[in-house]
Amino acid sequence: MHILLTLSYEGTCYGGWQRQANAVTVQEKLEEALARVFQTPIPVTGASRTDAGVHALGQAASFHIENAKIPLAKMPVVLNRCLPEDIVVTEARQVADSFSPRFDAKEKTYRYQIWHNRFPNPLLRRTALFFPYPLDMDQMVEAAPHFVGRHDFAAFRAAGSSAKTTVRELYACGLTRTDSIITLTVCGGGFLYNMVRIIAGTLLYVGQNKIQPDAIGAIMDSRDRTRAGKTVPPHGLTLLEIKY
Amino acid sequence: MHILLTLSYEGTCYGGWQRQANAVTVQEKLEEALARVFQTPIPVTGASRTDAGVHALGQAASFHIENAKIPLAKMPVVLNRCLPEDIVVTEARQVADSFSPRFDAKEKTYRYQIWHNRFPNPLLRRTALFFPYPLDMDQMVEAAPHFVGRHDFAAFRAAGSSAKTTVRELYACGLTRTDSIITLTVCGGGFLYNMVRIIAGTLLYVGQNKIQPDAIGAIMDSRDRTRAGKTVPPHGLTLLEIKY
Repeated sequence: MHILLTLSYEGTCYGGWQRQANAVTVQEKLEEALARVFQTPIPVTGASRTDAGVHALGQAASFHIENAKIPLAKMPVVLNRCLPEDIVVTEARQVADSFSPRFDAKEKTYRYQIWHNRFPNPLLRRTALFFPYPLDMDQMVEAAPHFVGRHDFAAFRAAGSSAKTTVRELYACGLTRTDSIITLTVCGGGFLYNMVRIIAGTLLYVGQNKIQPDAIGAIMDSRDRTRAGKTVPPHGLTLLEIKY
Repeated sequence: MHILLTLSYEGTCYGGWQRQANAVTVQEKLEEALARVFQTPIPVTGASRTDAGVHALGQAASFHIENAKIPLAKMPVVLNRCLPEDIVVTEARQVADSFSPRFDAKEKTYRYQIWHNRFPNPLLRRTALFFPYPLDMDQMVEAAPHFVGRHDFAAFRAAGSSAKTTVRELYACGLTRTDSIITLTVCGGGFLYNMVRIIAGTLLYVGQNKIQPDAIGAIMDSRDRTRAGKTVPPHGLTLLEIKY
């Protein structure tokens, strides 16, 4: 059978999702837990290769197993006993053998949090970017919807990344502010490497009047990475949800 | 001159506010930073003796110094360079020599956060109590205002504590819910030892139908600690603000 897990994690202590030689990763910890519970090596496939330091409240990952012997409803609790406290499985459900967590994803939602204040907030230092400079919030709110729709996002991906096409569709891109916390929520059919972090960086440039809201379209058309904003640090980013 | 600092901290790694022999405390870290900046030992007086694991976004502490030599406006930044990243000074202002951060406090506001979900949230594990059991939120919301006003809170203080009077006045006590996060906000003229954590524990009992909302008055009248709820763990508690 093929089982899809939903999981949450704090990425602070990990070298990202994907297994690698020189860092402890979330995938590795999950595979260790599965091996311990099922007493056999079990490779998992993740939906999203979150970077080092990026968090998740709705990552998805699947694995095949002949006979799970544990009811699906109990599987999260059993796995959580073998996982560190910064990784939590929140759901397990059966999917078709042909299911791909990565390619069958219809919609992904990410959040980027900014602590906009003169001084850092020690309670948010792992999950929000500390930004102490003035920001024109109205300009940022005006700019955000310019990313919505089907566009070529070549200007908003990490240099050197190699996706076949750089066209992606965003369904929503909005900013809210509660006291000193600015939250960018981006929802789309798919994302290029570092795309959300570059959109967030571009909106920070808009807030600093380095880019005008109505220039977003021209930056997209240029396909020129150097015209967009900086790639903001990973720790403000959280993968919230994946819809299938 | 007498200087009042406002500070934020994550309490996870500290044995509380107050200096003690067997644990690293926030007071100790602040005094170390002051000693380093001003090159002389400087004792501080805190407004609230937060327990081990309790956080603050608005603690206050004062100290005397002959000649600070650093403008008040720059003092937070200078001190923060000598503080660990989980302690942040956010303001420094001059107060009268006779000022007492503890006894001159007019109003304190605390928040207690509960992550009410079947599974833990790794991003909130240091700042919210994980509570996976059913809760009747309507009953809890109905019960909270019963704590408001001038009452004898003897039933809501840690056994063995020795305040002269157990009468305190609460100005507000309310619950809000956003998705799985329940936030209790309590504002009052002063608090007995563990009072907020026992109020939170009592409201959890109300949510589990172990105590009825209209029984809160009778529990107060009884002055009997055993009739109130449990003292909930410290990590959900944050000292938000102190007004002078």
